[in-house]
Amino acid sequence: MAKYFVVGGAGFIGSHLVRHLLADEADATVTIYDNFTSGQEWHLGDNLTSQRVTIVRGDVKDLSALKDAMVGHDHVYHFASNPDISKAVTQPDIDFWEGTYLTQNVLEAMRQAGVKKLTYASGSGVYGDTGATPVVEDMPMLPISTYGASKLAGEALIGAYCYMFDMHALAFRFANVVGPHQTHGVSYDFIRRLLKDPLTLHILGDGSQSKSYVHVDDVVSALRFVAARGMTGFSYYNVATEDYVTVKEIADLVCSRLNIQGTNYTFGGGNRGWKGDVPYVRFDSNKLRSLGWKNQRTAVEALRDSIDSMIGDAKEGKLYRAN
Amino acid sequence: MAKYFVVGGAGFIGSHLVRHLLADEADATVTIYDNFTSGQEWHLGDNLTSQRVTIVRGDVKDLSALKDAMVGHDHVYHFASNPDISKAVTQPDIDFWEGTYLTQNVLEAMRQAGVKKLTYASGSGVYGDTGATPVVEDMPMLPISTYGASKLAGEALIGAYCYMFDMHALAFRFANVVGPHQTHGVSYDFIRRLLKDPLTLHILGDGSQSKSYVHVDDVVSALRFVAARGMTGFSYYNVATEDYVTVKEIADLVCSRLNIQGTNYTFGGGNRGWKGDVPYVRFDSNKLRSLGWKNQRTAVEALRDSIDSMIGDAKEGKLYRAN
Repeated sequence: MAKYFVVGGAGFIGSHLVRHLLADEADATVTIYDNFTSGQEWHLGDNLTSQRVTIVRGDVKDLSALKDAMVGHDHVYHFASNPDISKAVTQPDIDFWEGTYLTQNVLEAMRQAGVKKLTYASGSGVYGDTGATPVVEDMPMLPISTYGASKLAGEALIGAYCYMFDMHALAFRFANVVGPHQTHGVSYDFIRRLLKDPLTLHILGDGSQSKSYVHVDDVVSALRFVAARGMTGFSYYNVATEDYVTVKEIADLVCSRLNIQGTNYTFGGGNRGWKGDVPYVRFDSNKLRSLGWKNQRTAVEALRDSIDSMIGDAKEGKLYRAN
Repeated sequence: MAKYFVVGGAGFIGSHLVRHLLADEADATVTIYDNFTSGQEWHLGDNLTSQRVTIVRGDVKDLSALKDAMVGHDHVYHFASNPDISKAVTQPDIDFWEGTYLTQNVLEAMRQAGVKKLTYASGSGVYGDTGATPVVEDMPMLPISTYGASKLAGEALIGAYCYMFDMHALAFRFANVVGPHQTHGVSYDFIRRLLKDPLTLHILGDGSQSKSYVHVDDVVSALRFVAARGMTGFSYYNVATEDYVTVKEIADLVCSRLNIQGTNYTFGGGNRGWKGDVPYVRFDSNKLRSLGWKNQRTAVEALRDSIDSMIGDAKEGKLYRAN
């Protein structure tokens, strides 16, 4: 009877994980620890009132409360972090206080509470600007954003805690994750702006930025797939599709799904969305694929599902930026 | 007329750097920012009262005070961090609060104060447990201690700030640094204990732990040597001797320099000094050597000078643990 503890469990990826955990394991219970800044009650659907779900409204910065809530659980999933990575341009310490610091507290709470298993949401930002070279897990990492630095700092801390305090952890370096409940991201921004003004759309960079977009259901399946094989020490995996989509193609897709025609695109210039953005990401996910995992949706299919879901949310008045 | 700002400038490495900066550049001025926990006034010798030296007693945790003190300087050297790396066994968040957090504040103070050049004291801990493989700068890094995780987190942050905010930085991954003003380390511990009881010496691990020990003067020469070539973006270098000394050999050396004979060694067992200790470190410093740097002292010579200096300090009652 597994007892899961999901930090950020009402957020984008966390809420999907919670749904899968409860559906896949009939006797599992889940504690959601969330401060509900980007997390939302409606992300949880019917699980909000499930007998198998405990919701703790708390801040990861409150180490004592976090530790108290964590006692007696088997496996912690840690999704809490600053979701708006471009914010660091004007607020450069945000990824320290809403990233690295939170991971430090999650680890210290686990150690104090005696919880031994951790799954961590890392990100492609750990690699930095690698150009057309497909990134593999054991290449040198040189982040160019405070978001990437925070994810790398988190992995380094987790590896050290695993070694020093006999914990077991998995870290997943995600490509761009898309799907229902997204609270940020390029298609999210495009939908919000096109609903206000369908005639013009300003695109940061030159629109040629090209990345992998992986569906949140495929992300959750990767997390569950690797954990089911058992956890020993610290391991880490890239999670990505094998196809890539440009920002310009995403704009076209959003217009198409909104049934908008003739929108005039203007471009910010340069090839980056913001300083610290990595314009091209080529992810090698063979380490994960060699274990047997496959993505069910391509990047284009993932984006289409995500866009349709957000358009639906927008019609119900649920698409808003939380902060 | 260079204006240097040395964070931790009254500490072990910092105080030697200050001495060299003032001696080598007749028109240079130095601001020392130190909270004097492991830093000591006597480390500064005559420079304590130099007209070219400003001493600011402050905490790096006080971002506002740090930024105010930093305004108008050209080049920041950052040495402030937890000096007792084995403390993390019982206080695992010490390297976060006395390491990663301080580097975050140094970078943010630099950005706010408009200072563009940084030299950072990193460490061998970034690599983790690499066994007999000589570590080169661009190999994968998997720290096994919170100290190593903190140094890696610091480097990642620095790289990100350099990219996002047009700074220039050098990071140096030191082997064990020894020399006058040491406040921690294996020979420091041996001297203190043998002065209390010359008959028995307890050695952690099995005494076969074997590492490079580099003299602080050679460390300072490396920092100055690379900076003199100009700084663009973020670069990082290993700094080490090419010879290695075991802990048992250090015990013999300390006994010999203290003129003690017949000490009975007892061993803690295992091959590590503490959980998170890396028993063997083989450092490849060819990246730095290829630029023309050479160490003036071997590991054995560095240790001998360090031990003699600490024995002298002990006789003057200056060898004590600050915390």
